[in-house]
Amino acid sequence: MTDISEYLKSHEAAFEDDLCELLRIPSVSTDSNHKADIRRAAEWMADHFRRLNFETELIETSGNPLIFASGAAVPDAPTALVYGHYDVQPPDPLDEWITPPFEPTVRDGNIYARGATDDKGQMLTHVKSAQAWVETAGQLPVNLKFLIEGEEEVGSEGLEEYLAANASQLACDCVVISDTSQFAPGQPAITYGLRGIAYYELFLTGPKQDLHSGSFGGAITNPANALATLLGAMIDDNGKIQLPGFYEEVVPLTTREREGFQSLSFNDQKLLDMVEVDAATGESGFSLLERRWARPSLDVNGLTSGYQGEGAKTVLPAKAAAKFSFRLVPEQNPDAVTASLQAFLDERCPPGITYELKDYHGSPGFIVPLESPYIKAAARAIESGFDRPPVFIREGGSIPIVTQMAEKLGADILLLGWGQNDDNTHSPNEKFNLNDFHRAIKTSAHLWSELAKLET
Amino acid sequence: MTDISEYLKSHEAAFEDDLCELLRIPSVSTDSNHKADIRRAAEWMADHFRRLNFETELIETSGNPLIFASGAAVPDAPTALVYGHYDVQPPDPLDEWITPPFEPTVRDGNIYARGATDDKGQMLTHVKSAQAWVETAGQLPVNLKFLIEGEEEVGSEGLEEYLAANASQLACDCVVISDTSQFAPGQPAITYGLRGIAYYELFLTGPKQDLHSGSFGGAITNPANALATLLGAMIDDNGKIQLPGFYEEVVPLTTREREGFQSLSFNDQKLLDMVEVDAATGESGFSLLERRWARPSLDVNGLTSGYQGEGAKTVLPAKAAAKFSFRLVPEQNPDAVTASLQAFLDERCPPGITYELKDYHGSPGFIVPLESPYIKAAARAIESGFDRPPVFIREGGSIPIVTQMAEKLGADILLLGWGQNDDNTHSPNEKFNLNDFHRAIKTSAHLWSELAKLET
Repeated sequence: MTDISEYLKSHEAAFEDDLCELLRIPSVSTDSNHKADIRRAAEWMADHFRRLNFETELIETSGNPLIFASGAAVPDAPTALVYGHYDVQPPDPLDEWITPPFEPTVRDGNIYARGATDDKGQMLTHVKSAQAWVETAGQLPVNLKFLIEGEEEVGSEGLEEYLAANASQLACDCVVISDTSQFAPGQPAITYGLRGIAYYELFLTGPKQDLHSGSFGGAITNPANALATLLGAMIDDNGKIQLPGFYEEVVPLTTREREGFQSLSFNDQKLLDMVEVDAATGESGFSLLERRWARPSLDVNGLTSGYQGEGAKTVLPAKAAAKFSFRLVPEQNPDAVTASLQAFLDERCPPGITYELKDYHGSPGFIVPLESPYIKAAARAIESGFDRPPVFIREGGSIPIVTQMAEKLGADILLLGWGQNDDNTHSPNEKFNLNDFHRAIKTSAHLWSELAKLET
Repeated sequence: MTDISEYLKSHEAAFEDDLCELLRIPSVSTDSNHKADIRRAAEWMADHFRRLNFETELIETSGNPLIFASGAAVPDAPTALVYGHYDVQPPDPLDEWITPPFEPTVRDGNIYARGATDDKGQMLTHVKSAQAWVETAGQLPVNLKFLIEGEEEVGSEGLEEYLAANASQLACDCVVISDTSQFAPGQPAITYGLRGIAYYELFLTGPKQDLHSGSFGGAITNPANALATLLGAMIDDNGKIQLPGFYEEVVPLTTREREGFQSLSFNDQKLLDMVEVDAATGESGFSLLERRWARPSLDVNGLTSGYQGEGAKTVLPAKAAAKFSFRLVPEQNPDAVTASLQAFLDERCPPGITYELKDYHGSPGFIVPLESPYIKAAARAIESGFDRPPVFIREGGSIPIVTQMAEKLGADILLLGWGQNDDNTHSPNEKFNLNDFHRAIKTSAHLWSELAKLET
């Protein structure tokens, strides 16, 4: 690894130049005006892989192109698949950026640009580590594949279709994804679990039209009242979700996990201060961190009914609707949640109200056992790259495409986040720390050799 | 009364002509483009009173003019004050009118025009009965005053100010208002009670900005969840409102009233069919009619929170708000409801959420005792005019200005509705039945002689 370390040191400026080149392409996937930029970014990626002598395909999809690239075969070595994305969020509101979003600028050791951390900068660490291997050792010590998409910010539809049809091409032992954050500055982390999601919209209909609340109030069932009652009944005063059987499949936190979470010395008060609340609530019997990462939850995401303008209108609304979603933990199944929710609504929807339930999307959560040899290899690599062992964390969010990859490929997922929690992902002044960029490239270079030591 | 009866018969066509003249003036109070029409209608009214030799004032207010007119003094006779309004609702949507809203047209015995029943046609019945008395007997048998406003459809602000400052000018024994409906075609009614109202908007604030429901769900209190829980907790499964002490001042229905309501042979199913629901809910232990007219209720009038667009957005909203209102019955006091609501919220608003309660407007309900001599006089007059005794009903709606008149003037309120429930008040193709118009004029003429018989 000495050669590689020296290569990395001597190429820091070049790596940064390449990152800036990619960041200058405004590959905004939500805006069709950027179609040409999307293609430019995809071709930039493909060229980059070709320069490493990777077998490279630019794959057309129903949406934006995918890049699939694989290095020289290494018989008997494990196979890793790096997943990332070259598309970025829109930069709005533009006037809140200190420097323009597509003119990468370094301040205080951070590079500021849309996509710096999400995901161009993070994804590129693995490309650059591969380059270091190829240009020093001639090839990688493992079978390495890249799958880079251009629709992560708009639903990954093309990737989903491709994944369904091409699982064998993508076959691997582990999937490496760097699109999350470290635990704290200077404290790298391995994210070994994500929550799943089950998202719904509930439409309640009462009378055929809005009625006068004076003439009809108290006599005709009010859908807005019914909505509040139904949603209110879904969760009790202890924060326990009341759908029948909801907790049956929940995998409890292990003692090792609870102790691990406690040892993180996570500061609850800091989180409350950050979001500016003076207290928090949630499922009783669990710490704030456990509730975020490893316990299911229910959030109303949107409410709409009746008169929402200024002032007072005495209306008994004809309709009321709510968007709400459950976060799920392993082994909860979104379809089982849907069935339970329907049973709950069938039993409780009051006379005079009909309901329609729209099932938006569901995705189970996943967890990689801490004993996984891939997790352990990644931990050793991080210790080499960051001079500090990682902590093991979970995330409250859901990345359905990751769950799908875990399921379809039967591979362990390594979520190795190089970002920071304050990187302004999806916000103005997105940034990525350049020291972390280089430490992550070093980690990635070590990861390939750590993986190479594993039996297949 | 023979002369008067003959006068009424021989003047039917003339009365209808006058009604049409007034209906042709598009005195829409919600639309400032109709300022000149408003004044034209006010002057039309004032002229009409002057022709009866009533002492007439066109009173300027902060908004549209009021007309106050009083007939010759009749010492030792009671004083009646007729209240009505010359302003009308806007006619939109125009293309749903079969004939233009300001070109009154007779079809099937009904006159179709904006304002036909609300309130030009109904109000005019008392003007025409006064005319019949003046032109046959030379004067009225009672002290008769008229107070006609032009802002009923926009909040009666000018009237409210005037009422506060001029109670002595308006002093009377009873207030006569014809701006409601009969119980059914051919079945006149006296409305002897209205519900009051207490209208609020509740704003809940949680985190400083919308959060990702994956990263924060289950940990940070969600204002939309809290709103559903709070609103859901305000009313129990039996339809009982849970604010502390809410029912303490409620005047129970008397046996006579309950029997009276039952004898109305009101068809619940017909109401459900009309609003197209298959069942209804409400406070247990009370009939649908009792719940509408004589029991308090709580209706959510509007809900708003989080993401309300198409599709799914995984947001933990920073804010949630609801508009909701209680209908009150005598002797409930809106201020006491506000205090109780605040106590309820103080106790239940969860940690991590702050609330702001906006108190829109409150007005108590009122009830005129069925034993009131004015009610009895009105009942006799109706029997003379309609050849059928009235039924005694209450209304679920609230007319704050009426409650204010009852309070400020200490007078019994006679709500004598000549309209029908299907008159399309506030809707296209508003109508008023011409037979009812003439029967109501006759009733009104009899009312003045019935009132004259009462002791003062």
